[in-house]
Amino acid sequence: MSTNLTINPERLWDTLMDTARFGATPKGGVKRLTLSDEDKLVREWFTSACEAAGLTVAVDQMGNMFATRPGANPDALPIAVGSHLDTQPAGGKFDGILGVLGGLEAIRTLNDAGYETSRPITLINWTNEEGARYAPAMSGSGVYSGEIGYDDMMARPDRDGIRFGDELKRIGYAGAETVGARRFAAFVELHIEQGPILEAEGKTIGVVEGGQGIYWFDGTVTGRDSHAGTTPMTHRRDAMMALAEAALAVEAIALENAPAAVGTMGEVAVLPGSRNTIPGLATFLGELRHPDGGTLTAMAEALDARIAEINARRSPVEIVLTRKWRKDPVAFDKRIVDAVRGAAEKHGYSNRPMISGAGHDAYYVADTCPTGMIFIPCWEGISHNEEESATQSDCAAGTQVILDTLLKLDQTL
Amino acid sequence: MSTNLTINPERLWDTLMDTARFGATPKGGVKRLTLSDEDKLVREWFTSACEAAGLTVAVDQMGNMFATRPGANPDALPIAVGSHLDTQPAGGKFDGILGVLGGLEAIRTLNDAGYETSRPITLINWTNEEGARYAPAMSGSGVYSGEIGYDDMMARPDRDGIRFGDELKRIGYAGAETVGARRFAAFVELHIEQGPILEAEGKTIGVVEGGQGIYWFDGTVTGRDSHAGTTPMTHRRDAMMALAEAALAVEAIALENAPAAVGTMGEVAVLPGSRNTIPGLATFLGELRHPDGGTLTAMAEALDARIAEINARRSPVEIVLTRKWRKDPVAFDKRIVDAVRGAAEKHGYSNRPMISGAGHDAYYVADTCPTGMIFIPCWEGISHNEEESATQSDCAAGTQVILDTLLKLDQTL
Repeated sequence: MSTNLTINPERLWDTLMDTARFGATPKGGVKRLTLSDEDKLVREWFTSACEAAGLTVAVDQMGNMFATRPGANPDALPIAVGSHLDTQPAGGKFDGILGVLGGLEAIRTLNDAGYETSRPITLINWTNEEGARYAPAMSGSGVYSGEIGYDDMMARPDRDGIRFGDELKRIGYAGAETVGARRFAAFVELHIEQGPILEAEGKTIGVVEGGQGIYWFDGTVTGRDSHAGTTPMTHRRDAMMALAEAALAVEAIALENAPAAVGTMGEVAVLPGSRNTIPGLATFLGELRHPDGGTLTAMAEALDARIAEINARRSPVEIVLTRKWRKDPVAFDKRIVDAVRGAAEKHGYSNRPMISGAGHDAYYVADTCPTGMIFIPCWEGISHNEEESATQSDCAAGTQVILDTLLKLDQTL
Repeated sequence: MSTNLTINPERLWDTLMDTARFGATPKGGVKRLTLSDEDKLVREWFTSACEAAGLTVAVDQMGNMFATRPGANPDALPIAVGSHLDTQPAGGKFDGILGVLGGLEAIRTLNDAGYETSRPITLINWTNEEGARYAPAMSGSGVYSGEIGYDDMMARPDRDGIRFGDELKRIGYAGAETVGARRFAAFVELHIEQGPILEAEGKTIGVVEGGQGIYWFDGTVTGRDSHAGTTPMTHRRDAMMALAEAALAVEAIALENAPAAVGTMGEVAVLPGSRNTIPGLATFLGELRHPDGGTLTAMAEALDARIAEINARRSPVEIVLTRKWRKDPVAFDKRIVDAVRGAAEKHGYSNRPMISGAGHDAYYVADTCPTGMIFIPCWEGISHNEEESATQSDCAAGTQVILDTLLKLDQTL
């Protein structure tokens, strides 16, 4: 059969805009926190839409939704596609949603053409990718892959003390299927880039080769509060100045490992917080990222060394740095990456290899089967924001790449 | 008559400890906000104590209290001594209080000896030195000197919206005397150092030659919020890193103007404040101080230049620095400074010249008559704190220096 199938850009766009009504915000964004009433509504819509497309919908004990289109070979492991339908509290219409609805559009296109794949195709909506209501993020795929504990997740409370497990039952999506029992031949996830690179370079498709490793650190700077007028420079124990040096050390280490490395100090507190009192205490939260695990380790060690140097110079002011979390880099399967690149090339979409800076369900799924991702540009690189935006043309291109990737994998895996 | 009079250290200490009951805190400090019920109580105690010492108590329209001991020459301008009895919300037993009660002890000593000065001696309790309830600080002496407007001060609200003028009437200390009508031949103020120098050097008396000039600046750093994982270093507009450089510029400029200069960034906010979001906005409040006005101006200009350099290098991130306030340095009258030094030397008290880093009523009074200050050590340089502490021996030495300074000025002015 021909694989020159073309997705329907208008149908895709209309579906994106239509589902944005579930949790629509006045500013044009979406607030659809996981396991909320709005999440329940979009799940019900998703079930209906999948059933209307001839798919069989199953739900596991984490609320992950699997909608399967049969293949010619019912015993073959399905090829999976999807992402998530939950959003940030002030989220947009595309983050995650495009990956699910793009998958749906690809399946609808197969249906229109009467195309029968060899393997079944499964469209997935992963529960709680955002982590905005229930930490940690990506917990649907995380429990699926075995990296997050199911019981732990069920017991987690939101800010109002409502437990994840109770809320999952309340909205009717605590399924019977054991989490992780269902396996796939491959998984492909389409997503907006959430960064500025594709837009800046005028590229349509990001061929995602992997995800960065992430190192989270917490810091406390202990000095001593004292009067800003009466305390000579030589007598000060100024926590603010040590904090400033720590911040610039983070930046310097990222720049020294350019261009792939990034470093951020995103949250700081300086106390007691008065213009004419020398700060005696400062705290900070930050992170380093790099696609190579060894380099990330070296960067973390370099930060420790810089902090030690600052401490030695500024003693008795002391910065204590603690490692909060580390996630090793993810490398996607070469076969999936090649299929994505091939699909982009086939349609003449300008493209480039990329490393994802953000976390995605695909990272966890990659532990269980060959996995890859497709990025499209988003306006100004902005996401987790009601202004998050992607063009109809780019959404269509990404979805076309899904379809061609699925067909290629169906023929070659 | 002999001027070899010796103050009574125990009486001084007992009076200090006794008055600490007005607003006593569980941790051994004092909370006696200006014009509060506790301030009223200590003012009533002060009136009684002064009258018991034979003084005539007058109150001006700002609530400043003037208790006068007659001299042989009733037409001569009095020599004044004093400080303030109000405290910070979590203040100590010494800041301000020692200057008033030390003056009272000096007068009691004159009484005990039956010593008649040539000039009258006036003991002053200035209203609202701390500024903790009603900004600005030092407003009793500020209105007295004409540098703060009386009507403006009367209309100022506290956090509960209660106006200064109304509260002054409520506690019964809105006097009839025109503020500033009463003039003095000299003013001497004893105070704890509120800094670490005397303690660190093992000195008993600080001979205060003047007060630092102060330059207050406010800053805003505008960058752009973005995802810490997906935004390459080259695409970032990181407000935190520019803030860090601005902080270190403040420190560097102070160090370059050592040892007299100080520089502080005491209050900062970094937004939106999330570990994995690059901060798009930061604000800061800071200050520079130097005893020489020209140097202070040069320091402020140097800061502008450093900020411009940071902005040029980090554009489009931009730091906007605004001048909030400037106070020129104060130089005390050489005759008073010499009298203080002479008194310290006469008693063999180790001493050193000092520039006050903190603001004091004496700065405003210096605009109206020859003025000087005496410092004594305080524990670890700490003040504005319930742990604020000074030794009985140092309090006595400072009070002895008051007495000898008053007598010297009485004989020489």
